Amino acid sequence: MTAAATRSIDWDSLVAALGEIEIIRDPVQVARLSKDYYSYSPLLRADLDDKVADLVVRPANEAEVMKAAAVCVQHRVPVTIRGAGTGNYGQCVPLRGGVVLDLTKLQAVKWVKPGMARVEAGVKLAALDKQTREMGWEIRMAPSTYRTATIGGFIGGGSGGIGSITYGQLRDRGNLLALRVVTMEDEPQVIELRGDDVYKVAHAWGTNGIITELEIPLGPAYPWTELVATFPDFMTAARFGQALGDADGIVKKLICICAAPISDYFAALRTMIPVGSHCALLMVAEPCLEPFGELLKEFGGTICYQKSAQESGKGVAIGEFTWNHTTLHARSVDPSLTYLQTLFPADKDLKLVEHMYHHFGDEVMMHLEFIRVNGVVLPAALQLVRYTTADRLYEIIHYHEDNGAFIANPHTYIIEDGGRKVMDPAQMQFKAMVDPYGLLNPGKIRAWEQQQ
Amino acid sequence: MTAAATRSIDWDSLVAALGEIEIIRDPVQVARLSKDYYSYSPLLRADLDDKVADLVVRPANEAEVMKAAAVCVQHRVPVTIRGAGTGNYGQCVPLRGGVVLDLTKLQAVKWVKPGMARVEAGVKLAALDKQTREMGWEIRMAPSTYRTATIGGFIGGGSGGIGSITYGQLRDRGNLLALRVVTMEDEPQVIELRGDDVYKVAHAWGTNGIITELEIPLGPAYPWTELVATFPDFMTAARFGQALGDADGIVKKLICICAAPISDYFAALRTMIPVGSHCALLMVAEPCLEPFGELLKEFGGTICYQKSAQESGKGVAIGEFTWNHTTLHARSVDPSLTYLQTLFPADKDLKLVEHMYHHFGDEVMMHLEFIRVNGVVLPAALQLVRYTTADRLYEIIHYHEDNGAFIANPHTYIIEDGGRKVMDPAQMQFKAMVDPYGLLNPGKIRAWEQQQ
Repeated sequence: MTAAATRSIDWDSLVAALGEIEIIRDPVQVARLSKDYYSYSPLLRADLDDKVADLVVRPANEAEVMKAAAVCVQHRVPVTIRGAGTGNYGQCVPLRGGVVLDLTKLQAVKWVKPGMARVEAGVKLAALDKQTREMGWEIRMAPSTYRTATIGGFIGGGSGGIGSITYGQLRDRGNLLALRVVTMEDEPQVIELRGDDVYKVAHAWGTNGIITELEIPLGPAYPWTELVATFPDFMTAARFGQALGDADGIVKKLICICAAPISDYFAALRTMIPVGSHCALLMVAEPCLEPFGELLKEFGGTICYQKSAQESGKGVAIGEFTWNHTTLHARSVDPSLTYLQTLFPADKDLKLVEHMYHHFGDEVMMHLEFIRVNGVVLPAALQLVRYTTADRLYEIIHYHEDNGAFIANPHTYIIEDGGRKVMDPAQMQFKAMVDPYGLLNPGKIRAWEQQQ
Repeated sequence: MTAAATRSIDWDSLVAALGEIEIIRDPVQVARLSKDYYSYSPLLRADLDDKVADLVVRPANEAEVMKAAAVCVQHRVPVTIRGAGTGNYGQCVPLRGGVVLDLTKLQAVKWVKPGMARVEAGVKLAALDKQTREMGWEIRMAPSTYRTATIGGFIGGGSGGIGSITYGQLRDRGNLLALRVVTMEDEPQVIELRGDDVYKVAHAWGTNGIITELEIPLGPAYPWTELVATFPDFMTAARFGQALGDADGIVKKLICICAAPISDYFAALRTMIPVGSHCALLMVAEPCLEPFGELLKEFGGTICYQKSAQESGKGVAIGEFTWNHTTLHARSVDPSLTYLQTLFPADKDLKLVEHMYHHFGDEVMMHLEFIRVNGVVLPAALQLVRYTTADRLYEIIHYHEDNGAFIANPHTYIIEDGGRKVMDPAQMQFKAMVDPYGLLNPGKIRAWEQQQ
């Protein structure tokens, strides 16, 4: 069953049934809360710019989430769940109108223990980090949007980020311990998922239940030094990134490598990074700075910016120029730019990276983020693309795929066409149980739409 | 210049010159302090059993070390440095008599900071660990002898151990930050080495200066759960070890895999591990136990022993059945056993491990220790060998080498013939400077002997 068109819905009666729960009907605000950062993709802009919710519901706690779920089920209204809306795949854009369920008021930190925390879905990553650091712990990984992004949104729509060089990606066992979800049944219930069962819901863009609470692991809070180093050429910078990733004795949190001219787009770093640099943006544990310096020397790197852990919080945060913030800064200078999301194969020689760097030249500017995938360090990439046409964009994508790079296409709002390619049958089965009317984020799962 | 024969030395005048420094001349004690655990090797027993120092000198601080060095240089006496004597290559056996310099009285912990410590060479690893854990930190890696071994001995003669699954080996940049050494010049001086310069001295078996103080990195002190799991067959256990090693989201400190019948040798675990088990001895961070359980389930493993971090210090410590303690326990039941030290090539399918397991059967019992080497998880091995003859032992070693396994031969007291194969020219140059008379641990470096 797919979601009914929302035209026939009696909105006044629905609003009345929601009672005390905060509702936003102001069209400007509703339009704003129907968006995320899909605008990085010219193709998604064409697809999604006109998509808007009918209203926004902002429950303040799990009880209100359950009430909102019951009312929406009763009225057969599509429900698109939203955190801070910092995704880039249109994850939280309502394709068929209805309700946007904004969970940012669920802000309780239930508990923090050594190595673990239990929090409500709307807790902002940076706020949680601040609290856990007082106990010597921090979030294992975060996107570059950690200042605004919520933990629920990250688990629902993210894949990894700053920290993935140590802990791998969110999908790896151990990086998500438990989830609590509210179902969209006639009588909504709350289900706690633990162990591998969390993957019935994680990274399903809010299609498989409403995440209200999460248990996540924490990593030790090292004092992190932020650094930018420049290199004589791009491939030396890239090889340094691989070597630092493979240096088991040097603890690090971020290895971002940007080919020239990418760093020229970083307005706030303009006085620090020489124009036209091939550079590495890094976070290294303070006790490891001396051996890090030896590795850097081996690769002929030069430090042009360094901020101690004690100064963190002052000035710029280097993490906010990496991952998809790289794209953000570049697009703020040149809005015609778009990007790719790529996973290069494990290869210490980085042959395919080198080939693509030379093959596309300035059209596809190389931006690597080293991460661990199944125990091996390899470069993910969020290349900046000088966009011309959709055909050319797909030509670039297919050239990568044909040569052995994996593309998590960020120019589609269909889950399968992004990073995962095929829906997990366990997720589909779970969806059938918790969302029997297909009301959650309708239109995003091809397999679901096809079976209706 | 090589060390003079010690016959001509005026020992009474030497002892008088040492003044207040503690000296041991009792032959029983001198004999005991001239040994390490080389006895695991029947070949080393033949070579080393008759080697004994003339006397033992036990300085209590760096000033006494300098005085002892000056006196020994003046008398041209060979000096063999000793920590707890827990090595297995005869590292601290004096080949040419002379003085054994026992550094176990240098016990000061100079400072502990987040992620770093500075200590004197004679500090016992377990004692340091206890102190740093109060601040939330611990030693990154330790041998199974951590209760008695000293940090100076570990850096001088060890390579890695429990913790190497996360941080790699001692030789990896970042796992040793600084060294302070006393030279054997006519007027001994103290030299501080930092950065890559530490490798002029590290793992040189006390041939390149007398280490008095060290700066080492610390890792976060997770609450570690100790576990033993059994598996239906050896290769499943081995593949589980590889998978756990590669599980970036699961924090662990130890992955030891023992083929049957090895665990039958563990008297203290006899009531816990079923006879004839293929088993894994593990240390896993407590916050990761739930995802760990899912991985274990995937491989059909069964937990037969589990001790929480809260109970650590009570009962047996699982680490003391791994690395070369495995050999110790096996030999305490069957003293005819000996062992190998092997590094298998990186290969997630473990094909060479599987081949050797079947090829040698019960003659070479498989004992794997998973570690990180240049960013990649692979199995080291300390196989138990049913010893027959030296020829057969070398046949086994050569079969491994011919098939692509790296053997750090533990049946030789020559540094080059063990793990490193070729002496680093920088080390040789440094030795020429700090030990011009070739008095430090003479006879252990082939390249040095050949150039005299």
